[in-house]
Amino acid sequence: MKQISSHHNDLIKHIVTLKEKSRARKKSGEFVVEGVRELQLALSCGYEVVHVLFYEDLFPFEHLKTIDVEDYKCIEVSKDVYTKIAYRTTTEGVLAVLKSQSHTLDQLQFKTKNPLVLVAEAPEKPGNIGALLRTADAANVDAVIIANPKTDLYNPNIVRSSVGCVFSNTIATGSTEDVISFLNTNNINIYSAILQESINYTHPDYKIASAIVVGTEATGLSQDWRDASKENISIPMQGKIDSMNVSVAAGILVFEAVRQRSL
Amino acid sequence: MKQISSHHNDLIKHIVTLKEKSRARKKSGEFVVEGVRELQLALSCGYEVVHVLFYEDLFPFEHLKTIDVEDYKCIEVSKDVYTKIAYRTTTEGVLAVLKSQSHTLDQLQFKTKNPLVLVAEAPEKPGNIGALLRTADAANVDAVIIANPKTDLYNPNIVRSSVGCVFSNTIATGSTEDVISFLNTNNINIYSAILQESINYTHPDYKIASAIVVGTEATGLSQDWRDASKENISIPMQGKIDSMNVSVAAGILVFEAVRQRSL
Repeated sequence: MKQISSHHNDLIKHIVTLKEKSRARKKSGEFVVEGVRELQLALSCGYEVVHVLFYEDLFPFEHLKTIDVEDYKCIEVSKDVYTKIAYRTTTEGVLAVLKSQSHTLDQLQFKTKNPLVLVAEAPEKPGNIGALLRTADAANVDAVIIANPKTDLYNPNIVRSSVGCVFSNTIATGSTEDVISFLNTNNINIYSAILQESINYTHPDYKIASAIVVGTEATGLSQDWRDASKENISIPMQGKIDSMNVSVAAGILVFEAVRQRSL
Repeated sequence: MKQISSHHNDLIKHIVTLKEKSRARKKSGEFVVEGVRELQLALSCGYEVVHVLFYEDLFPFEHLKTIDVEDYKCIEVSKDVYTKIAYRTTTEGVLAVLKSQSHTLDQLQFKTKNPLVLVAEAPEKPGNIGALLRTADAANVDAVIIANPKTDLYNPNIVRSSVGCVFSNTIATGSTEDVISFLNTNNINIYSAILQESINYTHPDYKIASAIVVGTEATGLSQDWRDASKENISIPMQGKIDSMNVSVAAGILVFEAVRQRSL
């Protein structure tokens, strides 16, 4: 069993950089995942392990047997080193470097004639992206598409807040222009969450091929989506304050489509 | 105009304590709100101002005219002092001490025979509570009830993440036992979000007096709610990971009730 007890080890430095720098993740095609449940999920979703690092006092060697990884990829690290690379304060003692998967639009293929797609334009907060991915998994949408992404999906805060749904969903990213073109080519109707000139979100028939598109709370969706919409949809705001969390709004829209499809 | 330029001023110390300590908020019956929009909302919802503190370079004196507060309650503070009391990094230069309102169950009265109530048991994360309150405002529910609260509602992170919806909603808090007793006394049907022995959340008729009850992601709802439920309701999870953000789930449930009521 390989062991590392120094901060200055090149792999440890690499892991720290992977956690902090999007550029390092893109360049190396690797990222970090923490926790046994997340790691098992990633493996069950077809991700490939590069290294598994564990701190024996927190995560005894026998527990590695619950994870399907070759021995030579496993490395025992000292407490000191583990503290350096761990993100969580209540940590589980195991962390892995995985190979990234690509998320290009041209890889996206649908198993159904009438897919349901959730599109988010330029989402910023990792917590919101995580919640969107959890909703998408629960609704079993055919794909999640991030248009004009502001961050890569292997940002540790997204991996963490998605509780593994970043692995389980079919995800693609691309420019807004390319995403609209993709949806049009695939004859998927675009329903943009836009207040102006909108209809109540319960009115469209989502049983046909549908993309539900949400923007950010701060700036909403770009003009391109207004132009591309089959209909703008909105959730009627009946309170004193015109405000709803974007991942809550996306959940309400997506599950209205699910409700209709289950009738 | 009164002016304060010292950290050691008693009011400044009081404000710092109000922000940090739930106990200080309860004892004094005061809390802190930051930002002009939130302050205006609080005022429009009937909150009483004790002091308004502003830092002239960020928030010129004339701007105070947009807020309906008596001059003698306004205090100009130095940059140093403002930095000490401000929560936000991108701050607006204005902050107020307000009088708390009480949230007892016996104050709760409904204007309609068939109220829609959102109940959350022991919610912990301020961000989730803020999102719940935003959803409740948007859905114009008749009341939000927090059962077994873990924190007071004037926690600065709740005030902030609710973007003012902590002021606009009708809110009550109480022990789970008292809340169930209150709902029963008022003939409000209890629909508990519980996976076990549940029906699809779209099946009940929410046009009758209804309370939608959600627990925490970690532990769900307590046994008391299982016993008190007219029906347990659940959102069908169709993905690989049985997980949804609690405020997203609450949004889906509440807006199903809203949808039914608008038919």
